Amino acid sequence: MEFSVRDVAELLNGKIEGDATKSISKFGKIQDADPSSISFLSNPKYENYIYSTNAAVVIVRKDFIPARELKTTLIRVDDPYLSFSVLLDEYHRMTSFQKEGIEEPCYIGKNSVTGKNIYRGAFSYIGEHVIIGDHVKIYPHVYIGDNAEIGDYTIVRSGVKIYENVKIGKHCVIHSGSVIGSDGFGFAPMEDGSYKTIPQVGNVIIEDHVDIGANTVIDCATFDSTIIKKGVKLDNLIQIAHNVEIGENTVIAALTGISGSSKIGKNCVIGGQTGMVGHAELGDKIKVGAQTGITKSYLKQGTILLGAPALERDKFVKLFVIYKKLPDLLERIKNLEKKILSSPES
Amino acid sequence: MEFSVRDVAELLNGKIEGDATKSISKFGKIQDADPSSISFLSNPKYENYIYSTNAAVVIVRKDFIPARELKTTLIRVDDPYLSFSVLLDEYHRMTSFQKEGIEEPCYIGKNSVTGKNIYRGAFSYIGEHVIIGDHVKIYPHVYIGDNAEIGDYTIVRSGVKIYENVKIGKHCVIHSGSVIGSDGFGFAPMEDGSYKTIPQVGNVIIEDHVDIGANTVIDCATFDSTIIKKGVKLDNLIQIAHNVEIGENTVIAALTGISGSSKIGKNCVIGGQTGMVGHAELGDKIKVGAQTGITKSYLKQGTILLGAPALERDKFVKLFVIYKKLPDLLERIKNLEKKILSSPES
Amino acid sequence: MEFSVRDVAELLNGKIEGDATKSISKFGKIQDADPSSISFLSNPKYENYIYSTNAAVVIVRKDFIPARELKTTLIRVDDPYLSFSVLLDEYHRMTSFQKEGIEEPCYIGKNSVTGKNIYRGAFSYIGEHVIIGDHVKIYPHVYIGDNAEIGDYTIVRSGVKIYENVKIGKHCVIHSGSVIGSDGFGFAPMEDGSYKTIPQVGNVIIEDHVDIGANTVIDCATFDSTIIKKGVKLDNLIQIAHNVEIGENTVIAALTGISGSSKIGKNCVIGGQTGMVGHAELGDKIKVGAQTGITKSYLKQGTILLGAPALERDKFVKLFVIYKKLPDLLERIKNLEKKILSSPES
Repeated sequence: MEFSVRDVAELLNGKIEGDATKSISKFGKIQDADPSSISFLSNPKYENYIYSTNAAVVIVRKDFIPARELKTTLIRVDDPYLSFSVLLDEYHRMTSFQKEGIEEPCYIGKNSVTGKNIYRGAFSYIGEHVIIGDHVKIYPHVYIGDNAEIGDYTIVRSGVKIYENVKIGKHCVIHSGSVIGSDGFGFAPMEDGSYKTIPQVGNVIIEDHVDIGANTVIDCATFDSTIIKKGVKLDNLIQIAHNVEIGENTVIAALTGISGSSKIGKNCVIGGQTGMVGHAELGDKIKVGAQTGITKSYLKQGTILLGAPALERDKFVKLFVIYKKLPDLLERIKNLEKKILSSPES
Repeated sequence: MEFSVRDVAELLNGKIEGDATKSISKFGKIQDADPSSISFLSNPKYENYIYSTNAAVVIVRKDFIPARELKTTLIRVDDPYLSFSVLLDEYHRMTSFQKEGIEEPCYIGKNSVTGKNIYRGAFSYIGEHVIIGDHVKIYPHVYIGDNAEIGDYTIVRSGVKIYENVKIGKHCVIHSGSVIGSDGFGFAPMEDGSYKTIPQVGNVIIEDHVDIGANTVIDCATFDSTIIKKGVKLDNLIQIAHNVEIGENTVIAALTGISGSSKIGKNCVIGGQTGMVGHAELGDKIKVGAQTGITKSYLKQGTILLGAPALERDKFVKLFVIYKKLPDLLERIKNLEKKILSSPES
Repeated sequence: MEFSVRDVAELLNGKIEGDATKSISKFGKIQDADPSSISFLSNPKYENYIYSTNAAVVIVRKDFIPARELKTTLIRVDDPYLSFSVLLDEYHRMTSFQKEGIEEPCYIGKNSVTGKNIYRGAFSYIGEHVIIGDHVKIYPHVYIGDNAEIGDYTIVRSGVKIYENVKIGKHCVIHSGSVIGSDGFGFAPMEDGSYKTIPQVGNVIIEDHVDIGANTVIDCATFDSTIIKKGVKLDNLIQIAHNVEIGENTVIAALTGISGSSKIGKNCVIGGQTGMVGHAELGDKIKVGAQTGITKSYLKQGTILLGAPALERDKFVKLFVIYKKLPDLLERIKNLEKKILSSPES
């Protein structure tokens, strides 16, 4: 597919500067784009590349002032990264395989209803008393347990497993291999050292516009609901335990584990491989670095946590700087000891 | 479904105190239960809620003495949490979808035998020479490789993958997406820098009453068996490498990784995101905190480990307390230096 | 199956020492092998066992000189571990279930082509415009999205999910539950606190001789390719984010997470549960311990990293040794203070 610079500029409501007759056919990073590519400059640390790039066109900020001569064509916009993602959207819309209809064989249990314009891939399984909204895409090998609900426009990629009674909102995307609603990890210790399984009769509620990565697991609640609020973005291989609640627009990176009955506020950003203890709470707009170990509640907005066990950022940095000087401290103590021991008073 | 207080008390062999004519229809936490709910009080730190709870009934310890007047009805029992879990069991038994029979299409290879009263979901796959016991539930999209065995009453949830030759005991539950018997990670370095794959011809043996969470992986042994003993409870997203042995009634939380040929004793409790080096051993009744890095063997019963690299708890706590005072230590060293330098002897 | 010592020695091009008339039927570890087993001695720390082992035969290094009398037969070779793995290979070849042909039902979309001698398990799904090479094995419940390619002799185990446009080379093995090509985790923050999904229109390229463990995830690139080079070995439950590049013959252990746009060189060895920040680079032949937190680029060949945040090994060890002596340091500071305060000048 080829696009003219003029078409692109029009789509982005941008202003062309340079040769407007070029055409482009793909996307490229500014540092290694070829002459058929369009690129963008958002982060100033990449500015140097714009003077040597082979890209046919680069999308730049409205107020960008080149320091030297340019051979590439510019399209000036308000937000280059956002504009680039609009192009990706458009390209994605034109090239992606828009699945629709029913591939055989697939399975649907009794008393289940499905909306209009849905896709049901081969070998997908829908249990009994399930409600599926309009424009939903259910890829091959998806399992949807009895009594579950899935809202309009939600996409469930191949091999996702949704347990009984789970409720999923509209416009969600769930990637392959994720498991929603598996039993919470609850066992009561018996006197003989063995454990009795606590039945998990609750469910999972996922609100609208939630994205869930691949092979992530969200356990059901013991008797009420594990809740993932509107706009939450979960990466791959995340563990969300029973009875957890995650607030609106919170983003969590891969391999993080949130223990049972913990609560996370709105608009938090949580780094990968972080762990959070059970029954704790994070307030709104809290940032957590990768590999952090959250051992208690932090409610104050804007708190930044690092390290395991977690410390507030300033404290963490201050301590780690001194930690790296421990050999020097030890040396200074030895010197003092030498001085004191050699002094006449000692 | 509605239950009378009398029925519940009888089931739990408990003693009613207060209005015995109420009826209940659901479970609730003591702090936010509504008037149709039954709740329980086990942890004393929640005692305050019992004086204001809206729950119709609260299950309490036999010897509980209220400090103030109560509006809720009590049912007195030996162990409130256990009694509550008995109710959850009963509710679960009555409301859960008791799958039975064979859904089509499903696949079974030659020379495989299945017991009585089993469930085989649509798109489930059973290879050749497989032995399935009585009352086993095999959900949709389960794969059972050639020569595998599954004991009576075991439940295998949707999408579990069981490799060839794996043996699974009775009364186990395996949650969606878990993989049992995948190849151990064994490669021999070649002179040219590449690796030769070491064939993994062993298997996995899982004894009775083992629970395995979602998306957990247990690799087969190189040439004998990876062994998960009776009563072990594994959470989600755990990695158990080749030739590992895990002792009876040991509990392991999510995202933990146990490296090849390591051995863990009985009745251990291992926190989430912990890592254990290969060829090491933990004794019985050892407790390991979350995010611990176990770098060697610890055989003494009752040892408690924290931190990465792991230290025994007392040592870990002592060091971390001083670590947090490093700025103060640095200050004290500076003061000493000032004093010494300004003293006439220096 | 029974094998004579002579046959084994011939296969390994080894020299028999001791009773050559024995026969063996299985593999055993030197410390607990029984009289029908063959074992090997590679690591000198196990040498003691060779004097008491029950194994019929032990494979040893060509130049091994026994310190005491032996009752076992020896086969002398250049590299005992490698020779043992050759035997495992041979055994594996003879006993493993060599799947071939097409099990029904399975699904293949239009315009897809498959090579000769392939296996397509029941309930496997191949989309449209897919190219499958010769001798490929596609196990049950595998999903292969539109436009994907899989090279000759590659084995895709049950339940693997391969997204659209992914290219996989020859002689690869991908274990159950792994997901290749899921959307990169890319979201642009909006002014109202919500996030806009950045469409991920790139793909994943996996070169020849790559092994991928169970439940591992490799995300597609935003608009070019996530690349896994020839000979890479990935363990279970690993997260490889969008636009990552992993160099030839690099080995990564379980539960490690590599963030977006990071690049890892050739012949690196990366321990389990390690995390690597985005947009960083590791050079060739770098070694990283388990649970390391790589926060920036390290380009120098042979660097060894430990700890979180990562430090070079010598630095890490030096600091940790002093860290463990912090109580002693505190004591010495107190002593100095006492001396100074009690001295006449203070």
